[in-house]
Amino acid sequence: MTQQEIGSALARAVNEVREKNPLAPSITNTVTQDFVANAQLAVGGSAAMLYLADECEAMAKISAAFYINMGTALPFYAETLPRTAKALHENKTPWVLDPVGIGLSSLRTDILKKFKEFKPTIIRGNASEIISLAKLWSLIEDSGGQVRGVDSTEKVSSAKAAAHALAKFTGGAVAVSGEEDFVTDGTEEILCAGGSVFSTKITGSGCALGGVMAIYLTVAEPFIAAVAGTTIFNLAGTKAAAQAQAPASFKVNFLDNLYLLTAEEVANNFRIVGSFEDMFDFEKA
Amino acid sequence: MTQQEIGSALARAVNEVREKNPLAPSITNTVTQDFVANAQLAVGGSAAMLYLADECEAMAKISAAFYINMGTALPFYAETLPRTAKALHENKTPWVLDPVGIGLSSLRTDILKKFKEFKPTIIRGNASEIISLAKLWSLIEDSGGQVRGVDSTEKVSSAKAAAHALAKFTGGAVAVSGEEDFVTDGTEEILCAGGSVFSTKITGSGCALGGVMAIYLTVAEPFIAAVAGTTIFNLAGTKAAAQAQAPASFKVNFLDNLYLLTAEEVANNFRIVGSFEDMFDFEKA
Amino acid sequence: MTQQEIGSALARAVNEVREKNPLAPSITNTVTQDFVANAQLAVGGSAAMLYLADECEAMAKISAAFYINMGTALPFYAETLPRTAKALHENKTPWVLDPVGIGLSSLRTDILKKFKEFKPTIIRGNASEIISLAKLWSLIEDSGGQVRGVDSTEKVSSAKAAAHALAKFTGGAVAVSGEEDFVTDGTEEILCAGGSVFSTKITGSGCALGGVMAIYLTVAEPFIAAVAGTTIFNLAGTKAAAQAQAPASFKVNFLDNLYLLTAEEVANNFRIVGSFEDMFDFEKA
Repeated sequence: MTQQEIGSALARAVNEVREKNPLAPSITNTVTQDFVANAQLAVGGSAAMLYLADECEAMAKISAAFYINMGTALPFYAETLPRTAKALHENKTPWVLDPVGIGLSSLRTDILKKFKEFKPTIIRGNASEIISLAKLWSLIEDSGGQVRGVDSTEKVSSAKAAAHALAKFTGGAVAVSGEEDFVTDGTEEILCAGGSVFSTKITGSGCALGGVMAIYLTVAEPFIAAVAGTTIFNLAGTKAAAQAQAPASFKVNFLDNLYLLTAEEVANNFRIVGSFEDMFDFEKA
Repeated sequence: MTQQEIGSALARAVNEVREKNPLAPSITNTVTQDFVANAQLAVGGSAAMLYLADECEAMAKISAAFYINMGTALPFYAETLPRTAKALHENKTPWVLDPVGIGLSSLRTDILKKFKEFKPTIIRGNASEIISLAKLWSLIEDSGGQVRGVDSTEKVSSAKAAAHALAKFTGGAVAVSGEEDFVTDGTEEILCAGGSVFSTKITGSGCALGGVMAIYLTVAEPFIAAVAGTTIFNLAGTKAAAQAQAPASFKVNFLDNLYLLTAEEVANNFRIVGSFEDMFDFEKA
Repeated sequence: MTQQEIGSALARAVNEVREKNPLAPSITNTVTQDFVANAQLAVGGSAAMLYLADECEAMAKISAAFYINMGTALPFYAETLPRTAKALHENKTPWVLDPVGIGLSSLRTDILKKFKEFKPTIIRGNASEIISLAKLWSLIEDSGGQVRGVDSTEKVSSAKAAAHALAKFTGGAVAVSGEEDFVTDGTEEILCAGGSVFSTKITGSGCALGGVMAIYLTVAEPFIAAVAGTTIFNLAGTKAAAQAQAPASFKVNFLDNLYLLTAEEVANNFRIVGSFEDMFDFEKA
């Protein structure tokens, strides 16, 4: 796709969400539920957070997209998460997976192993999480190494092979979040710049991004939905950082900007920084 | 009651809460707990969120009012909710019910059926929820139709009969939230205007309203408590919308206004828009 | 320690946290998780909230500090909390306990009794909670009396003996929060003034304070960590109250100030109000 084609598709997604107010239900961590829901509403979507397996299955059938964030695993997730993912897969409902906390417990590992066959449509995480998931699914070689809680210890560029492998396997898109963001569907690959260091000083930026991608997934193909979420977050972050001097006011401004940004701004201001090799150079510089 | 009598009663409720700092414990959804609690504190009340059946029973006995919001149903709600409602009923502790998510699962349906005998003092919901509850309790005829998650698909006016039926049955009050808000105790009926479209662009406005009604219920009769909550929310929303350009800053301003509004403002600025027929005309126009 | 020694130690703690971005995982209530995490991030730390016993045990082994807040007790806390506290104790991982809701149910009482042998490194609570815990652990005489939910019904000064007894027993520090704050390790004792009445008009100030103490506990001894948290909260509260007119904008400003305050400000502006007897006089006046 050309820059212009991507831009037009982004603008369509941004506008269509604002017109249709689509719902993307979530199973998401209890820390940042409020932020996720408010971000989904700010871009024009609708939110519903759920815990019970039968409710998730019911919504999986009738919703246009779904979001699963594994953050604060609860005891009953052993039942809720696999049943939901299965229902999503069987009903061909596209869904976004944020494998946050991967490797932290056998429960998470068991659930994430089961998710392999239910093929999440978009996988979003930091570099460490994306690499860990690709290893867990035996899509890349496991050379060891450890993941530290919810924070990334890896550069975005180090997750390129893992992201490609995951996208090829699922047939969807993978978004690796970091200082720069990498999005691929296994063929197309782009780098998005922007955002703000303040995003790492508030909790839930990544969670909210996954939730917003699920909203865009109700109206757009996986790659465009992933880029739309990434791009509007970067733009809103850049603007908010210019308006705020500290994290809490940044967060208010960030959500406000998600609401205020025009489709044209999203279409014209996303930046394909260059090839992955450029990024690699960038990170070394 | 005359407009002036209602106004005086509202002013008394607003002032008494600020003087007494009364506690109204809640079982409420995990998404918006923080917003509910902060709204309760902003109007002068005190908040405590609970999950365990025995803790809720204990608090049901000693509290002046209680709030149950069914939002994010958890597995143990099957035990906690009926036991709490029973304790509230047996101790004659007034309570507010927000039947959000009604119809989403058999667990919710079972719990809401049990609630019929424990008669919530105030029922607050959007038109779809109020109609669904009146049908579930066989208080109005069930002509079919479906509820879509947490969003209202019905006009406020369409819930008039359901609201009346529920209020007559419980002996309390029913508040139907929407673009205009309808409150009735089965005899009195008022319409409140105001608020802001931004309220639909943040999550939890309805949840917070139910929590604030529970605070007012500690010092006022059900109808006045429901109108007090509705009125202060509409006023705070109108003011906040004039101060903010987007949802997140609206939310901050909204909570600030809940704290700053005077009892006089609440007493003098609530607006009985007119008869229900007026509203119906209004909605058609 | 002299005022200057304490000041220098505080400055070191504030700077070291900002340099190292240390993680202090939490088991904390669902109402204020977002505020706790954002406060931890604002002072320079890293946050991860957990529910599952095995995940907490795993993190207890590898983390430099941990935070347990008993706020919204969930059914599985009966397993998670004692196992986590045991793991913390066995691995000599320092941890902060906020015994909020003490006395509300037999589950809480059972858990808190078990915590006695696992000796929390810092105990933070309001006067009522500190007194109740010292009674529960039979460290002071139980002359009866009751605790009202999450709110303090006691003056800070009334908890002096309880705080001393707890600190002597654990070998750590105890922080009693109130209009003035009292911190002791059983030998040193200081009073910190500042903060704002707005802190009582938002939910979670105390919870967030406990979480921030856990962050400082990753780099400082218990007494300094407790004073650092208390001091930066008081300073941020005082500044925020001067910038805001109401609770919600206060909260935004408060978090911003946690991020913006310099180590020098924390070191130079904490105020040891005087002896405990002074405080007692102060409260009577």
